[in-house]
Amino acid sequence: MQDLIAIADAALNASGAAIRPYFRVGLGADDKSDESPVTAADRKAEEVLRAALAKATPAFGIIGEEFPSHNTGAKYVWVIDPIDGTRAFITGRTSFTTLLGLLEDGVPVLGFIDQPVTRERWAGGRGQALRFTGGLGGTPGTRQSVALAAAELAATSPEMIAGAGPEAVRRFNQLKHAAKRIYWGGDAYSYGLLALGQIDLVAEHDLKPWDWAALAPVVESAGGVVTDWSGEPLKLGCDGSVLASANRALHDAALAALQR
Amino acid sequence: MQDLIAIADAALNASGAAIRPYFRVGLGADDKSDESPVTAADRKAEEVLRAALAKATPAFGIIGEEFPSHNTGAKYVWVIDPIDGTRAFITGRTSFTTLLGLLEDGVPVLGFIDQPVTRERWAGGRGQALRFTGGLGGTPGTRQSVALAAAELAATSPEMIAGAGPEAVRRFNQLKHAAKRIYWGGDAYSYGLLALGQIDLVAEHDLKPWDWAALAPVVESAGGVVTDWSGEPLKLGCDGSVLASANRALHDAALAALQR
Repeated sequence: MQDLIAIADAALNASGAAIRPYFRVGLGADDKSDESPVTAADRKAEEVLRAALAKATPAFGIIGEEFPSHNTGAKYVWVIDPIDGTRAFITGRTSFTTLLGLLEDGVPVLGFIDQPVTRERWAGGRGQALRFTGGLGGTPGTRQSVALAAAELAATSPEMIAGAGPEAVRRFNQLKHAAKRIYWGGDAYSYGLLALGQIDLVAEHDLKPWDWAALAPVVESAGGVVTDWSGEPLKLGCDGSVLASANRALHDAALAALQR
Repeated sequence: MQDLIAIADAALNASGAAIRPYFRVGLGADDKSDESPVTAADRKAEEVLRAALAKATPAFGIIGEEFPSHNTGAKYVWVIDPIDGTRAFITGRTSFTTLLGLLEDGVPVLGFIDQPVTRERWAGGRGQALRFTGGLGGTPGTRQSVALAAAELAATSPEMIAGAGPEAVRRFNQLKHAAKRIYWGGDAYSYGLLALGQIDLVAEHDLKPWDWAALAPVVESAGGVVTDWSGEPLKLGCDGSVLASANRALHDAALAALQR
């Protein structure tokens, strides 16, 4: 496990160096038909990650957002989202992240959330305590005692929930009204903040494997719980709904609100 | 003007030092009745700013969010929001800011957006080019050529627009549908990103003087335009609607969408 963590750290150091030159270079001309900064950063970061991981763990599979999957029948499969939070990146916000997860038989066992501009990195894994590095402050550990009515909820956007259909909107709104407050925006960075005890709940829908694979190990290593909206563990083939909570009792209360 | 900028810089250095110890210390116990971290940071930062400004410019008035106004009949009045983006601060995001504006006869002539954790600071003023300092990247200057259909729009939350009533929601939705894309979240930090050419439009409603006084000078010094939703300049007594745009042509198109 420690070897795999070192391999992932080195790969993420390389992808961060590939991304930084494209951050906050402006939106570009309106009529520009060339590759946009975010598209270039996305592609280059995934190329760098794939090359580093393929070299260090040649028997592992790789699933990434930008290129075709490779050897997905392997017992261990890396899952890459080079830039989660495309809209945040485009608008110059440091809530975009690079996500790297490792699946064992389709289930996430190792996860990294990396912010290459603020140089924050969350590293979690099965049986591991969360490791969090970076200079903006914060201590690993979710909030262990909080009622649903006092819980801080985050979700990327109303449009993302609406994209999952009216039933998802109805269920989400029940959770939103049961929680204390919602913060819109934040993408995967919100799961990192949950792991620091700054958010209590994140509920999202329509996530792809590269969106969720890294998140569950980070949140679980900090004392939290992650499942789909039916309470089932995330694994390849799940429906893309994700609920992350600061603790088991809060998770059960949030699931009940989603299922009413 | 340069003396006033130096006074504001010194005051913001002090308020940042007052705020940082309260950032990302966790949400606290659910049933805690003591002052929350954000409340303490808000109050201490405004005390520090008021003390520094009152000492350096005793004849000026002061309006702040947390304490009673002082000498608002003066020709020059400082306007303070010690923590804009309370929800961002609570959840550990660096999109909260300290805002400091200076009004001359009720009209903003100097404005500062300060992020004390990332140590980014925007300083703008009448006849001044925007000064932007900080280590996360970005260059002052709004995007000077972009059609409304290609414009990146930001706004703090659907709930904030809804709070201004159904007519505001209707007008906002017309703008949202005419723009390329919306990013929810960001508070006053979005105006800073607009001044770096990473966002083209920000539209909000129900803003108080301490929310808007600092923003107009920052955006205007970067080449942008700021008015209310009717196209009138912001001044004490305005209705709290704010539209900021990267350039005059885009502003006129956005105003037309808001007024249809």
